[in-house]
Amino acid sequence: MAKPRATGKRVVIESVSPTVDGGEFPAKSPLGDDLVVDADVFADGHDAISVVLRHRRTGRRSWTETAMIPLENDRWRGSFTPTELGMWELEITGWVDQFRSWRQGLMKKAEAVVELDTDLLIGSGLVDEAASRARGEEARTLHSSGVDLGDESVAEEDRVEIAVSEDLSRLMDANPDRSRATTSDRYRVVVDREKAVFSTWYELFPRSWSASPGEHGTFADVEANLGYVSSMGFDVLYLPPIHPVGRTYRKGPNNTLGAGDDDPGVPWAIGSEEGGHTAIKKELGTIEDFRSLRDAVGEHGMELALDIAFQCSPDHPWTREHPEWFRHRPDATIQYAENPPKKYQDIYPLDFETSDPEGLWVALKGVFDHWIGEGIRIFRVDNPHTKSFPFWEWLIAELRSEHPDVILLAEAFTWPKVMHRLAKVGFNQSYTYFAWRNTRHELIEYMNDLAQVSHFFRPNFWPNTPDILTEQLQTGGRPVFITRYVLAATLSASCGIYGPAYELMENKPPRSGSEEYLDSEKYQIRKWDLDDPDSLAPVITQMNRARRAHPALQRNLSLVFHHTDNDHLICYSKRAGDDVVLVVVNLDPGHAQSGWLHLDTAALGVEPERKFQVRDLLTDRQYLWDGARNFVQLDPAGIPAHVFSVRGRVSQRAES
Amino acid sequence: MAKPRATGKRVVIESVSPTVDGGEFPAKSPLGDDLVVDADVFADGHDAISVVLRHRRTGRRSWTETAMIPLENDRWRGSFTPTELGMWELEITGWVDQFRSWRQGLMKKAEAVVELDTDLLIGSGLVDEAASRARGEEARTLHSSGVDLGDESVAEEDRVEIAVSEDLSRLMDANPDRSRATTSDRYRVVVDREKAVFSTWYELFPRSWSASPGEHGTFADVEANLGYVSSMGFDVLYLPPIHPVGRTYRKGPNNTLGAGDDDPGVPWAIGSEEGGHTAIKKELGTIEDFRSLRDAVGEHGMELALDIAFQCSPDHPWTREHPEWFRHRPDATIQYAENPPKKYQDIYPLDFETSDPEGLWVALKGVFDHWIGEGIRIFRVDNPHTKSFPFWEWLIAELRSEHPDVILLAEAFTWPKVMHRLAKVGFNQSYTYFAWRNTRHELIEYMNDLAQVSHFFRPNFWPNTPDILTEQLQTGGRPVFITRYVLAATLSASCGIYGPAYELMENKPPRSGSEEYLDSEKYQIRKWDLDDPDSLAPVITQMNRARRAHPALQRNLSLVFHHTDNDHLICYSKRAGDDVVLVVVNLDPGHAQSGWLHLDTAALGVEPERKFQVRDLLTDRQYLWDGARNFVQLDPAGIPAHVFSVRGRVSQRAES
Repeated sequence: MAKPRATGKRVVIESVSPTVDGGEFPAKSPLGDDLVVDADVFADGHDAISVVLRHRRTGRRSWTETAMIPLENDRWRGSFTPTELGMWELEITGWVDQFRSWRQGLMKKAEAVVELDTDLLIGSGLVDEAASRARGEEARTLHSSGVDLGDESVAEEDRVEIAVSEDLSRLMDANPDRSRATTSDRYRVVVDREKAVFSTWYELFPRSWSASPGEHGTFADVEANLGYVSSMGFDVLYLPPIHPVGRTYRKGPNNTLGAGDDDPGVPWAIGSEEGGHTAIKKELGTIEDFRSLRDAVGEHGMELALDIAFQCSPDHPWTREHPEWFRHRPDATIQYAENPPKKYQDIYPLDFETSDPEGLWVALKGVFDHWIGEGIRIFRVDNPHTKSFPFWEWLIAELRSEHPDVILLAEAFTWPKVMHRLAKVGFNQSYTYFAWRNTRHELIEYMNDLAQVSHFFRPNFWPNTPDILTEQLQTGGRPVFITRYVLAATLSASCGIYGPAYELMENKPPRSGSEEYLDSEKYQIRKWDLDDPDSLAPVITQMNRARRAHPALQRNLSLVFHHTDNDHLICYSKRAGDDVVLVVVNLDPGHAQSGWLHLDTAALGVEPERKFQVRDLLTDRQYLWDGARNFVQLDPAGIPAHVFSVRGRVSQRAES
Repeated sequence: MAKPRATGKRVVIESVSPTVDGGEFPAKSPLGDDLVVDADVFADGHDAISVVLRHRRTGRRSWTETAMIPLENDRWRGSFTPTELGMWELEITGWVDQFRSWRQGLMKKAEAVVELDTDLLIGSGLVDEAASRARGEEARTLHSSGVDLGDESVAEEDRVEIAVSEDLSRLMDANPDRSRATTSDRYRVVVDREKAVFSTWYELFPRSWSASPGEHGTFADVEANLGYVSSMGFDVLYLPPIHPVGRTYRKGPNNTLGAGDDDPGVPWAIGSEEGGHTAIKKELGTIEDFRSLRDAVGEHGMELALDIAFQCSPDHPWTREHPEWFRHRPDATIQYAENPPKKYQDIYPLDFETSDPEGLWVALKGVFDHWIGEGIRIFRVDNPHTKSFPFWEWLIAELRSEHPDVILLAEAFTWPKVMHRLAKVGFNQSYTYFAWRNTRHELIEYMNDLAQVSHFFRPNFWPNTPDILTEQLQTGGRPVFITRYVLAATLSASCGIYGPAYELMENKPPRSGSEEYLDSEKYQIRKWDLDDPDSLAPVITQMNRARRAHPALQRNLSLVFHHTDNDHLICYSKRAGDDVVLVVVNLDPGHAQSGWLHLDTAALGVEPERKFQVRDLLTDRQYLWDGARNFVQLDPAGIPAHVFSVRGRVSQRAES
């Protein structure tokens, strides 16, 4: 028999949330948000317990403690608000509280009018022990309370009054006996920037922004047009890779082989004799032009985001300087990318099974370091799921410890568990399947899936990207372009579009069944008519204005779906304090749809049987609604969506 | 920057099941059952992976490996059948399989008729590397295949045939490159006895089994009546504590103070001058009588279970020998049990915050050791939730390592998480809330709750105990006694009754609102009329016979509820291979109820539109049913339940 390592620790702490894989990975929470921590905490027997939540910024020595309160079924809750970016840690401590247990018993006995002398003596002892743990005035007060409790010459009712007094409880809580306390495992939380959660992205190819038709657009051309983007209300301007494009196997228009000398090539075929991932394609401008654009983006209230695509064209300097970072074929050539039988001979993947993983990892981090040095803090990462997870885990931890304001968006469209893993190893945001979720059922099911992983996986909803022109967008016309943006912008606190293709409703694929764009900017220079009177810019502007004005749209957790009696109508709401936004969308681009909503009035903060006001943030029209049942009709000929601000209470909050 | 601990391990293993709290506690599986293990396993990119499940009896050096197969969505499954009682351990290993990845690509390219020379050379290299890992004949075969694959003088179609041959795949699978394999955490599984899962308990107070009215029954009296119990089909005979009962504050009939000299006292007030937890109450007999009973129980096909109640009467030897194991009051007396304002002065709890936890723990283990030494392997543990969890975890691990056939039933009726924790720290079975789940909704909800924890928490359903005479039993009469046993015996693989109170339908409480029994055997000797013609013994016998004959009733996992259009009717099925049992119970004791069942025919293994036979195992009546919709009527005047054996296929399996 093993001699027992006997312990008097009687409290158990289980099922702490938010945690990821039992603490293997940190949860995520944006700076300034209240972080709510729950746990199952209990002891054997019937004694009262006390539970505290302890937190600190990682690296600090001292903990801050806040009391946790019991919910039901042995679940306890505490919270704190992180005050700095970076890694935080938390743990929970619980102990059997002899004083509270005794106090509860005494109160019941006092009610039942039984003899209390012995009990008061027990209490006197507990208070005196606390006095010995306390200091100064507290110690003196406790000591004298202990003496009074045990003094049989004092009237019993006076002693009971001391025993159950709030003052004594407060002092006892402040000087607990934690010698047998149980402390949970330690869990981590990444505290990142507001923009990691709430961001509105606009992607553009600078190549198409020249004022002179056919000429390669420059950073300066983009800079000249920043007002166009910022006035629509976007706050992240994201550029595809800005590096030199390879010559070998360069692709021509519409992904053809044999590009001509004037073809600009695919931005993701990175690297030429001019340089690799830290160089700038000379047609875009100089590093000074880049810095000027970066600053101008900031002056327009936006932030510049770059694309990190860890792959190389055959002309990339690394193919000569570090052939060991690539996989080789028996003929000594470097293995190009394949999806058999398709060959992508203009792209060499990096080999994460290289004989020099340290060298490769450090070099890749150097790419981030370079652009961080140039003032960039937001990166969209191309195909992160084709690079090893341990690499990302190391890289992001390093970046974050040096620059806790860095935000990474994972461009992974692959199996759910792989996407989740990328979020676990540190990506702040991720692309999603939103583009392919169209029906009410699909959307609700997908939002429920996302809610399960919301403590570490933040969605960024894109109705289109340069690679994704969905069948719906190809065939649904203007109503679909409107509703898909409204859905993206209200279902997800982060969203984005690839423009101007989106607002100009570009919708032609190169061939049936393809989700690519015909004459895609990936391969050629386009010219966009930003003054097109049919442009959706006004609707997008209105939608983005609502996003900025309404905290409810800036988080995802409060999402509630409401019943509609017409499957083409989807209805949901979000709430942040007093701010409530209710959305109704007609998912049928072909016909007006009408029906009755059955609202969850509690979720909206309105009375079930009372009238309340809703104001459409897209059209500024107001309606007086009545309780849970209300009628809507949405016509694709107009704006087939309502984004209502709900005023349940007579609140005077100004709305922009 | 931290220098990267760069790794080429690309495979990720997550969400292994069955596991308990991330591996902190072992899962449970009975000996002989197939243990199915699932996990999420994936790698970055698009390469093929291979995954194996490794298992061994804890303490053995070598692992046994079995291949895992992919299900969907990156979930993989493997299984093994433990062959010994005790602790087992398992882990999962996965690696990127270069050969399979290559083979997949080659097959696609061969279909697309592209040039294959370079690819065949790559394959040749992979096969040759495998040859260097292999031995003997395998190495030679692999080597020659590698040479052939790379030999351009061999026709391409022949080389492709070698590449995709099953023989080569088998050899390559047998000699994989696992240098970059990922291995999961190690997880434990307790393999316990069949009876830990499937058991049918009968509890009796020996004091009432004397042939002479009013005399204290003995072990010999029980031995004389074993045929009565075993013929009903029970396989565990459980006796309340058999130890000397304290004199101080002994309780008289109906829990009155001031017991007379002839009052037998409460069996749970353990200990007198005659001894404590290892002694036998002299009115029951001698240790020889005990051994004789134990052997006779075995000869009747049953197993004797004892009650372990870790608490002491004021007269227990430990109160003198080890006062430090008890909590003391200021007047130096030992603190008795309380539920303020109620006092239980005949019971002293043990103090798990004692200054001598090691001494206490070892002494308590000594109690188990003593009775294990007397051949007992099944224990019902009284109120385990009032003893510390670390104690149980240590105790059960010790007992199990020495006696892996020991089975512990936790008598904990407290909050769910406390009950779950007891199961986690090692109890094989637990009492449940079944006694208080009456309506269809309550029963279905509770069974769903139990399904969530089935990998470590095994229910034992008791419709009554000496402490629990539910309101339903008090008021519902015979139909409730029948249906509650049918529900217990079919919803849970383990069940039990406190008899003869149950089969004789004893239903009077001492007062309204109480769940105690009037004239409870806890306090006095009773006389039971086992020959009562109204006894439910025949129905119980029939039910237990069905349990023994039908593997479907011997496990819980396969439980499926079927729709009924009458809320008073509950319908469910269980299945084990070909064996399917379908149960319908009328939950209304006052009226005949009828309605249509809407059966999940797939769960029953019958054709949706075809006729099938059901035979009622309680009445032996047969019915020809038709597809999913069938009508039932159940009258409380008869047997208000069907327990059908379903014969969906024309199977010739004999049914007893």
